[in-house]
This record gives sequence, structure tokens and C-alpha cells, in this order.
Amino acid sequence: MDYLAYYENKSILITGGLGFIGSNLARRLVDLGAHVTLVDSMIPDYGGNLFNIAGYEDRLRVNIADVRDPYSMRALVRGQQILFNLAGQVSHVDSMHDPFTDLEINARSPLSILEACRHENPAVKVVYAGTRQQYGKPQYLPLDENHLQNPTDVNGVNKLAGEWYHMVYFNAYGLRTASLRLTNTYGPRQLLKHNRQGFIGWFVRLAVEGKTIQLYGDGSQLRDLCYVDDTVDAFLRVGAAEEANGQLYNLGGQAPISLYDLSHLIVQLAGKGRVELAPWPEDRKRIDIGDVYSSYTRIHDALGWEPTTPLEDGLARMIGYYRQYGRYYW
Amino acid sequence: MDYLAYYENKSILITGGLGFIGSNLARRLVDLGAHVTLVDSMIPDYGGNLFNIAGYEDRLRVNIADVRDPYSMRALVRGQQILFNLAGQVSHVDSMHDPFTDLEINARSPLSILEACRHENPAVKVVYAGTRQQYGKPQYLPLDENHLQNPTDVNGVNKLAGEWYHMVYFNAYGLRTASLRLTNTYGPRQLLKHNRQGFIGWFVRLAVEGKTIQLYGDGSQLRDLCYVDDTVDAFLRVGAAEEANGQLYNLGGQAPISLYDLSHLIVQLAGKGRVELAPWPEDRKRIDIGDVYSSYTRIHDALGWEPTTPLEDGLARMIGYYRQYGRYYW
Repeated sequence: MDYLAYYENKSILITGGLGFIGSNLARRLVDLGAHVTLVDSMIPDYGGNLFNIAGYEDRLRVNIADVRDPYSMRALVRGQQILFNLAGQVSHVDSMHDPFTDLEINARSPLSILEACRHENPAVKVVYAGTRQQYGKPQYLPLDENHLQNPTDVNGVNKLAGEWYHMVYFNAYGLRTASLRLTNTYGPRQLLKHNRQGFIGWFVRLAVEGKTIQLYGDGSQLRDLCYVDDTVDAFLRVGAAEEANGQLYNLGGQAPISLYDLSHLIVQLAGKGRVELAPWPEDRKRIDIGDVYSSYTRIHDALGWEPTTPLEDGLARMIGYYRQYGRYYW
Repeated sequence: MDYLAYYENKSILITGGLGFIGSNLARRLVDLGAHVTLVDSMIPDYGGNLFNIAGYEDRLRVNIADVRDPYSMRALVRGQQILFNLAGQVSHVDSMHDPFTDLEINARSPLSILEACRHENPAVKVVYAGTRQQYGKPQYLPLDENHLQNPTDVNGVNKLAGEWYHMVYFNAYGLRTASLRLTNTYGPRQLLKHNRQGFIGWFVRLAVEGKTIQLYGDGSQLRDLCYVDDTVDAFLRVGAAEEANGQLYNLGGQAPISLYDLSHLIVQLAGKGRVELAPWPEDRKRIDIGDVYSSYTRIHDALGWEPTTPLEDGLARMIGYYRQYGRYYW
């Protein structure tokens, strides 16, 4: 089956649809001929941004609603063929300061949406955005799906719960669900107003603004990065594949890179900014998880997915985007 | 250190303290000279039963409150040295019919209690009651702590989240937490009003009432059983041990036994009742998880715990208890 052709005339709901990954997915789906409805709460600081659908405003439907509102969600899932369940509170720092809001958005809301699907639209396909942070500090590398889930913050626990409700609803009710455990995703349309949603975007902003990227220790920690178009491609493959039902898959990046090398690459591509090393603050050192990168063998074997965007190309596109449109993001 | 002597004059809070395990633990702690406060919501059908503390009413303090009430919990954790966090919604069936209540009690409340401890009493030791059902359908046997957590119902997901908040609060804040993953616990003071809280108690009630125990299929599924006094002993060991902080341990039983053999043993010991085999209902077969039993090697190596009560003795005591006091339980 051609998974891209599959989306022509399909009715699609994307929660968190005005956010980073949601909006990139939405634009792609519109281009593929899908009928797309975006749900977003537009909570300040969370990532929803109307500029993310610039040029597509008339080709999709935007529905402002909060996934915590069960009645809105019951109404919105009706008639949809595929639901990409991307809404979330994504800041780990915020999850520790306000663990209950994180629980409501990342655990209770997925459960509520699954209940809505079960009652209102049991034939819908649901693809969830999990995270490699469910694994916590790696016991071995690369992280594969057989690695224990030992989350190190409240956000990781709640994302884990959110994912597993999807698995339970597949097993118990036959709801066609799947989950992708995303690694560090980067690219255009990421929130860059503050630094609580991941380091890559923040490094890019600092470089584009000619500022200093500060790394703790020697910056030798390895990470894998996945360009958002590759992440979107994974969602499209899983959404179209019956064999993905009830499955969870890691995404991953091409070769892991140290934060030191990454930040220097960003500065070089931006032609601005600088990198500085600083000693580890004690509270940060305590929760540091060292090197982290994932194996994407399972989804590669099952669905043929792999990350295809070279890091230099992805970063160059991202930097170019924020150079041009940064005013909409900070 | 003598872990039993440790409890003399200690201030102890037990959530779910009027329930099955909580009340057995409370009675033991009172006998060891501890100052015990029980918190229980007395929600009908959940397991709280004032008869469970018969004879101990004047030797401990009962505080009726719901763990979902954050203000009560903040007040109650103050001044305590050890908190045994046993409150929970324990019915898997109920968790599927009303997943949000299960989430509130089994996930949000532990988080709320941990926040209360962090702010009001950061030196308190917290021991959580997890469950082997967090593992879901075994991929190998016996289940050890390295087995993936693949819960098969909403209750399992929420218990998993509840446990991992404890681990996060240890890692992030140094709160002295630990978790026991209980297997099938049996003994006096278990709720027997309905059959939604585990099969052993229900089998015992049916036998004591001279009724028929119905098994699905050939009853060959293996289970391990842990007598409540052994379970209580594990809580006491973990509560007193600094080396248990941040740890999770399986409990387990002596040799696994098939449901067929177990039910015949119960009928034999009760001198009443009978066993009948019935075909699997389709919806039950779908969620059956086959043989399940746990390895307790980790807690044995760390803290010397093992189940010491022979099954025949434990069942005989349980049957004797319900013969005498059944009117308080059904």
C-alpha cells in the first residue's frame, strides 16, 4: 500500500494541531489531500501558534478546545478516520513545578479521548506521541523497546501512562491504537519563546540571536536528533498501517552527536553565536541522564521508516526558518 | 538492625488502613509499640471495614478521609515517620467501567500525597503498595523486576504511574520512597462482599457458604499466593531499611499452584463447596493472561524476606476467620 496515497480524502483529527509536530503533520496531510481538523487549546507557553499554519488557514479547520474537556472531545472524534493524538504538556521542568496539570493533560486527557473514541467512534485509528523520556536513564544503548521504562520526572510517568491507556484500549476493546516514542525532534515551527521545551530549539534561537550557548560539563553527552519531516513520515506510516495496531515503536536519529559538536555545528551554520562550557549545577547533575539515543530498528523492520534528513540539512532549514520568521516565535 | 524493634514508638500513617492489608499491618504495628494512624475513606465496596480493627479500636487512631483530598493529606502526613501508602481502588473490572475514578485514586492521589510529603514532611519514609499486575501478560516466568511493564487494564496503568511517582520523588527530591509489587495476597480481613477484588477471597467465601467455585477452561493457570502476614512482614522490612530507599521489589509466594488445585484445596479445607469447570467466555479469554507468578529474589537478597506461611496453613486460618466472622464481611 502507498501510505501517502492512503490519506487522500481521509478525515483526520490532530490534537495539539497548532503545535510543532502537529502543524508540520497537518500541512503535510493537507498536501496529501486529507480533510484535516486541528484541535488546540492555545495555552500560552505550550507551543500552539497560529502562524504554524500560515498559508494553510483556508485548507484545514481549526477548532480551539482543550483535550481536558471531555464533551468537546466526544463531539470532535465523531466521523474522524484517523486521530493523531499529539496534544501534551511537553516541559519536564513544568511537570515538576506543577505535576497535577501535567497529569491532567498527559494522562487523564488521553484516557478521556480513548473513552470518547470507544463510545463515539470505535473504528477510528489513534496514533499517540510518546517519548523516549519514558525510558529514563539508559541501562544500555541504544534504547530499544525492550528497555525498562524508568522515567525520571513526572512528565515521563504521565506520558508512559498516556501511552499505555492506548495499549490497554487496543487489547481490551480492539481500538486500533499505536504509539511512537519520539526522540529529540527539531525543525521549523517549534516553540522558541522559552527554553523549557527541549534544548535544540533553544540552541538555535541563541545562535540566531548571536548569543552564547552554555553547556554543562564538557558537553560530551550524546543525543540523537530527528528532523520533523522524518517524524511526520513516521506518523503517516503508522496511521496507514493495520499491522501497527497495538504496537509501539521508537523513533531515532541518524548517528548520535555530542552536545558540544551539535552546538558548534549550529553556531557554524548560523554564522553567529558562541559556545561556552560551565560547571554542572548540583541540582542538574543529580537528574542528568548521560548519553541517550534510541534504536529505530523495530519501526524500520515493520514499516520501512528511517530518518533520512542529514543533520546539517535539517539544522540549516531550521535556522533559515527562524531567521525569516523568528518574530512569530519569540 | 532488628526491623521489628525499629517500630517501637514510631509514628506511622497507613492510607487504606481499614482495608485488608492495611488493617493487618496496623494491628501488627500496634503490637510492636508503634503509634498508628489509619486513613480510610470507607467508600462502600472498596475494602475499608471497621471490624478489621476489632479489639484495637482504642490502641490506634482512625481518621476517615479520602486520599483524593489534598488538604486532609497535607495535615495528616505532618509529624509522621513512616507512611504506608496502601489506599487504592483495587478492582480491575471497576477500573475499566470507571477509568477516571481509578485514575484519581490510584494515580493522582499518590502524586498528591508525595507532594504533601515533600512540602510538609520531607524526612518521612513512604512505602507504596504496587502490584504484579503492572507487568501484564508474562513474557517469561517467574516475573522479576526486569520484566517489562505491559499492563493490560486501566488499573495496571494507574498503579504503575502511582509507583513511578514514588521513584521520581526519590530521584528528584531525595524523598525516601520504596515500592512493593504485591502478588495475590490472601488471609483474614479481605473484602468478600463482591468478587471484584481478586479470586482467592471469593473462592473462600463460596466454599464457606457451600457454593460452587466455577473455573474457566481446565483451571490449569498457575498463580502464586502470599499470606497477608508475610506481606505485612515485607512492608515492615522495607519501612525500616534505609537500603530500600528508591527501590522496588516483587513479593511472591511459595510454589505456584493451579487454580484447579487451589480451589480443590479450599473446598477440602472448608469441608464444603464444590468446583466446576466452564468454557471460557469470549470477552474473558481475550484478556486472560495465562500463568503468572513472581520471583522474590531481589527482596530476599536485599532484606532477607521470604514467604514463610505454607498455603494450607494460611488458607485454613483464612477459612477459620470467615467461618467465625463472615457476617461482618458479606
